[in-house]
Amino acid sequence: MAIAQKIRDFMEKGSFIRKMFEEGDILKAKHGKENVFDFSLGNPNLDPPEEVHRRLIQILSEPVPALHGYMSNAGYLETRRAVADFLSGEHGLSFTEQEVIMTCGAAGALNAVLKALMEPGEELIVLAPYFVEYLFYVDNAQGVPRVVPTGPNFSLDVKAIEQALTPRTKAVLINSPNNPTGKVYDETSIRQLGDLLHRYEREQGRVIYLISDEPYRKIVYDQIQVPSIFQACRQSISVTSYSKDLSLPGERIGYLAVHPQIPDKEELLAACTFTNRILGFVNAPALMQRLLPAVQGLTVDIGIYQRKRDIFYKGLTQIGYQLTKPEGAFYLFPQSPIPDDVAFIQALQEELILAVPGMGFGAPGYFRIAYCAPDATIEKSLPGFERAFKKFAN
Amino acid sequence: MAIAQKIRDFMEKGSFIRKMFEEGDILKAKHGKENVFDFSLGNPNLDPPEEVHRRLIQILSEPVPALHGYMSNAGYLETRRAVADFLSGEHGLSFTEQEVIMTCGAAGALNAVLKALMEPGEELIVLAPYFVEYLFYVDNAQGVPRVVPTGPNFSLDVKAIEQALTPRTKAVLINSPNNPTGKVYDETSIRQLGDLLHRYEREQGRVIYLISDEPYRKIVYDQIQVPSIFQACRQSISVTSYSKDLSLPGERIGYLAVHPQIPDKEELLAACTFTNRILGFVNAPALMQRLLPAVQGLTVDIGIYQRKRDIFYKGLTQIGYQLTKPEGAFYLFPQSPIPDDVAFIQALQEELILAVPGMGFGAPGYFRIAYCAPDATIEKSLPGFERAFKKFAN
Repeated sequence: MAIAQKIRDFMEKGSFIRKMFEEGDILKAKHGKENVFDFSLGNPNLDPPEEVHRRLIQILSEPVPALHGYMSNAGYLETRRAVADFLSGEHGLSFTEQEVIMTCGAAGALNAVLKALMEPGEELIVLAPYFVEYLFYVDNAQGVPRVVPTGPNFSLDVKAIEQALTPRTKAVLINSPNNPTGKVYDETSIRQLGDLLHRYEREQGRVIYLISDEPYRKIVYDQIQVPSIFQACRQSISVTSYSKDLSLPGERIGYLAVHPQIPDKEELLAACTFTNRILGFVNAPALMQRLLPAVQGLTVDIGIYQRKRDIFYKGLTQIGYQLTKPEGAFYLFPQSPIPDDVAFIQALQEELILAVPGMGFGAPGYFRIAYCAPDATIEKSLPGFERAFKKFAN
Repeated sequence: MAIAQKIRDFMEKGSFIRKMFEEGDILKAKHGKENVFDFSLGNPNLDPPEEVHRRLIQILSEPVPALHGYMSNAGYLETRRAVADFLSGEHGLSFTEQEVIMTCGAAGALNAVLKALMEPGEELIVLAPYFVEYLFYVDNAQGVPRVVPTGPNFSLDVKAIEQALTPRTKAVLINSPNNPTGKVYDETSIRQLGDLLHRYEREQGRVIYLISDEPYRKIVYDQIQVPSIFQACRQSISVTSYSKDLSLPGERIGYLAVHPQIPDKEELLAACTFTNRILGFVNAPALMQRLLPAVQGLTVDIGIYQRKRDIFYKGLTQIGYQLTKPEGAFYLFPQSPIPDDVAFIQALQEELILAVPGMGFGAPGYFRIAYCAPDATIEKSLPGFERAFKKFAN
């Protein structure tokens, strides 16, 4: 056998989603790409802010020596400083470059953190519905995911997290604004989670880290503020990227940041720098790192995503779909009208609509719509959503 | 304890090298950066060919939609086709995009391949002296390195490899031109290695893959040709990057390519695409992928590195150092005049010369010089090399 059994098993388990994508490709080939309503992938459809290309061209036009050379595995000092300054302003805490490591996207950051932290068999608390890659990432570090459900409307259920803590719990992973639900955890629940972990440390003498995956932090609507994990919890680590807010997902540029007073800070950061190296990332891409000092705080026009959310949310609720109104990110996570979400996704495909079954996020009975798509695509898809809904309404 | 015991152990084992670097930094702070002869890192000092920046600026000036978006985890079709066409010309075999996966450097490629192939506990044959990261990469995949010595002048010792094969051997990893020795394995020995693996497959009914790490393939001297592993072995996989030949190491852009007739080809490539994703690389950086079709076959001026090699090799042999003349890459790997290479590296530091002890490459009694440095630095360092040598000559 050529490949490892575990990889074969993983691929098989994920094969139903791959099959959906393949069927989507067949639909596109058959009906024309422009006639298929593709809401399957969270691939931002907005261009980066103009400053991004302007600045990149400037850097390339006046190249410094070793423009694309290796730097410290943690990244350029200037870039880390710019990120630290931005974080200081955002969180009302004083960050320095020391607490920031540049990474190949949030995925690279999360893998570096988990590899640094987890002993084989230790547990990572993951909240359902979850971004499916989390399960692979914790396995990469030989850890074990412990899936805990969220509360009503996908809210943070701190009691459920408390009940799931064991002597083998190494960290709690949250993702807010959330993929796939669009939920933003409110300040009260984030504070309660921080209090829980602080109390655990006092009572058990052991640190459980809070890891927050925040690539959608700047993509929020209706003037919502995403509460600061750093304000709420001393043992917190943020992993994020510029993939969504600057529309650079293919460039693999992100970072991890730790609380300035996180326990065992130096050792933890040295370990994350080291794992960033030995996992084969080596460093975050150089040119994108050089861009970042000039674009801290910039984002694509979030209002455009908000409009898409509004059109879609209104359209689907009018049809009769049950769904929680997303507060951020660019996903809707409606209930499937029938318990079998895979069957419903197939019914949507008959309407040339592509979405992802909730099963892929540990939440059967739901489905995910990624609405980073043209307004017209969203609007024109609604009759198909209605026909699919009515098929099962009788 | 904050971090995983294994990571702590790894960091401790590597700490003598880190200590060297720290001492180097202290020297630079004390004596001025320009007065320290830093040959410690393989960080190319030549600028990329002009076409690289020209083309990048052009891409950014006329941005296509979703210029930086996610693409297939294997990379852009156009990029993979350009690489396949280049490989077809290089190896006299017909490659298509199907056999090419774009990766975050050769390190990303090697990690994706090993994760796809290796069952826990399976063995990877690694030749000493070796690039130290190999040991981490095989551990990432829960494999076990089996270190096999090279022959006279660091040549390929196919007999030693044959003796090291076990029922648990999954692959043989070679690196030619070699880091740290500069050795290029000759065609005869590469053919013998291919024959060995073909014979093993016939006799034992089991495929052992040949993985060749080739980032220095285009950096060779004296009209030497690097023999094609694809010509020699049907079960071969090449991993490489544009880090050295285009001076883009910080950009993390490379690829893996498999023999067009490799056994279980489809499953193997699907698995490598999948591991590229789940390891957190997701895809090779988008902008650099878009650059590649225009710069296939381009390199920095290799003659410049050859001149550096000549100056350094001549200088060191005249002093009395024993060393094999490198045929490629940009490293020299002389014998230390005393068995304790770490002690000798410290003696070099007293001369403000930074190099890496052979111990870090599984080859105690040697040391590595990275000569991607200005000619003047090389020339001015020679008296220091002489004084350090003579200190132990009596």
